[in-house]
Amino acid sequence: MSTFYERFLARRSNKHSVLCVGLDPDPALLPAQFNGVNGVLSFLQLIVRATANEACAYKPNVAFFEAMGQAGWEIFTALIETIRKESPESLIVADAKRGDLGNTARFYAQTFFDTYDCDGLTVNPYMGLESLHPYDSYPDRGVFTLCLTSNPGAAQFQLRGTPPLYEEVAAAVEERQRITGNYWMVAGATRASESLTRIKKLAPSVPLLIPGIGAQGGELATVLNACGTDVLINSSRGIMYAYKETGKDIDTAANGAALKLNQEIKALVSL
Amino acid sequence: MSTFYERFLARRSNKHSVLCVGLDPDPALLPAQFNGVNGVLSFLQLIVRATANEACAYKPNVAFFEAMGQAGWEIFTALIETIRKESPESLIVADAKRGDLGNTARFYAQTFFDTYDCDGLTVNPYMGLESLHPYDSYPDRGVFTLCLTSNPGAAQFQLRGTPPLYEEVAAAVEERQRITGNYWMVAGATRASESLTRIKKLAPSVPLLIPGIGAQGGELATVLNACGTDVLINSSRGIMYAYKETGKDIDTAANGAALKLNQEIKALVSL
Repeated sequence: MSTFYERFLARRSNKHSVLCVGLDPDPALLPAQFNGVNGVLSFLQLIVRATANEACAYKPNVAFFEAMGQAGWEIFTALIETIRKESPESLIVADAKRGDLGNTARFYAQTFFDTYDCDGLTVNPYMGLESLHPYDSYPDRGVFTLCLTSNPGAAQFQLRGTPPLYEEVAAAVEERQRITGNYWMVAGATRASESLTRIKKLAPSVPLLIPGIGAQGGELATVLNACGTDVLINSSRGIMYAYKETGKDIDTAANGAALKLNQEIKALVSL
Repeated sequence: MSTFYERFLARRSNKHSVLCVGLDPDPALLPAQFNGVNGVLSFLQLIVRATANEACAYKPNVAFFEAMGQAGWEIFTALIETIRKESPESLIVADAKRGDLGNTARFYAQTFFDTYDCDGLTVNPYMGLESLHPYDSYPDRGVFTLCLTSNPGAAQFQLRGTPPLYEEVAAAVEERQRITGNYWMVAGATRASESLTRIKKLAPSVPLLIPGIGAQGGELATVLNACGTDVLINSSRGIMYAYKETGKDIDTAANGAALKLNQEIKALVSL
C-alpha cells in the first residue's frame, strides 16, 4: 500500500490543495437544529460534503467525540465512513495527541490505524521518540508528532533551553524520518516565520501540519514561505462556523471559506 | 465534595494501603476462557474483586479499552461500575495521558470527569501547564501530570538540559499546586533514588504516582524512602498475571500479590 506521504502527493496534485479541514464539534456552538449526538453528526456530514472537493485532508479532533461517550465513537466511525464516501482520496488524520510507552502505544496505534482505519494520528513526544516506534509498524500511516504548538503556554517547555526543546524534537524526528519515512510534525502558525524556518532547516524531510492559521493572507504567506508545499494547512472554525460570519447557509459558507483559503494558498505557491 | 487528596488520605488510613492496581488488559495475554470483549471484562472484574480490600486506587489504562472500539468503552464503563460497587472507597485514575490546548482539554476533562466519572486523569505537560488549566475546574478530581516516565526513551527529552526538563516540570507543577491543590505527578520507579529525591525537593506538596515497581523490596525501599507516604505505588502485571508465576487461581494469585506488596510497603513505612 502507498504511504501517507504518497497519498498526500497524489491528492495535492489532483486537487491542487493542501487544505486540512479540522472537525472539532463543540455541541454548544452548533445551531439549535443540530441537537444531540445525531445532530452533531449531521452537521459534520454537511461540512464534509461542502468541502469534499476542496480538502486534501480532514482532521477530526478526537476529544470532542470522546466527551459524548460511546455514542461519540459511533459518530466518529460514521464520520470516517462519510469522508471515505464523499471525498475518497482525501486523508484522515485523527487528532488525538496520544503518547505512552511502547506496550501502550501499540494499542493506541491499533485503535486509530486498525479499529478506526485513519490515515494518520497526532502523537506527543514527551516520552521520547522511542515511545513512538510502535506507530512505525504501520508504514502506510502518518505519525504526526507535536513539535511547536500554537497555544499561549507552549513556550513554557517547548521554547526552553539552548537550543530550545522544540528544535531538539525537530532534529530527532528528522533522524527517525530517514529510517521510517512516515513522520510529519505539528507546528503552530502563531509562532510563524522564525520558528518554522528553524524547523524546516533542522528537519527538511519532515512535512508539516500547520494549525492556527487565521484568515489573514500575511500570516499564510509567512507560513508557506517558510514551509514550502510539503504542508497541510489546517482550518477548523474558519470553515465549520463560516456561516456565523457570512449569514449564508452552513454548507454554502463552509464551501466558500474552503475555496477562499485554497485560492489564497494557490496565489502564494504553485501546487 | 472532598478533594482527590482528601479521599486518598481517608482510604490510605482506612486500609493502610497506598497500592494502585493497574488494569492494562492485553487480550493476547489473557487465558483462553476470557475470550473476546466480555471475556476481558470478566477477567478484570475478577481482579477487582480479588483486590477490592487491598487497593487504595485502580488505574485502568485507557489505550487497552479504546483499541476494542465502542465495545471497549462499554466495558470501561462496566469496569468503573464494578470498582464503585466492590471497592467503593478506592479511587479511580484513568490513565489516558491526554494533552491538548485549552478548548480541547476542556473536552478531555469532560470525558473522564463527567462522562466516565473517574476520580483522576493522567495528563501530558508538553504543551505547558496553561494547557492543563481546564482540568482545574474540577477541584474534586486529581490531575496526574507526567514528570519522569519509566520507559527507556524517557531520557531523550525529560533528562535534557540543566536543570533537566523533568525538574522544571516538577517546579512548575509545585507552583500551580499551591493555587489549586489538585495535582499529582507520575514518576517512574526505574529512575528511583536520585531523581525522586530531586522531584520531592522541587515539588514537596505534590503527591506521586509511581509505576514500574518490580517485586524487588530493595527498589521499593528506595522509592518509599524518597517519597514518603503521599504516594500511590502502582502494580499492573505483577497482580493481573500473578497466576502465571504461582500456578494458583487467577483471583487467589492476584489477591496474594496485592497482599504481599501491601505488606512489603507496610514493612517499610507506617500508613
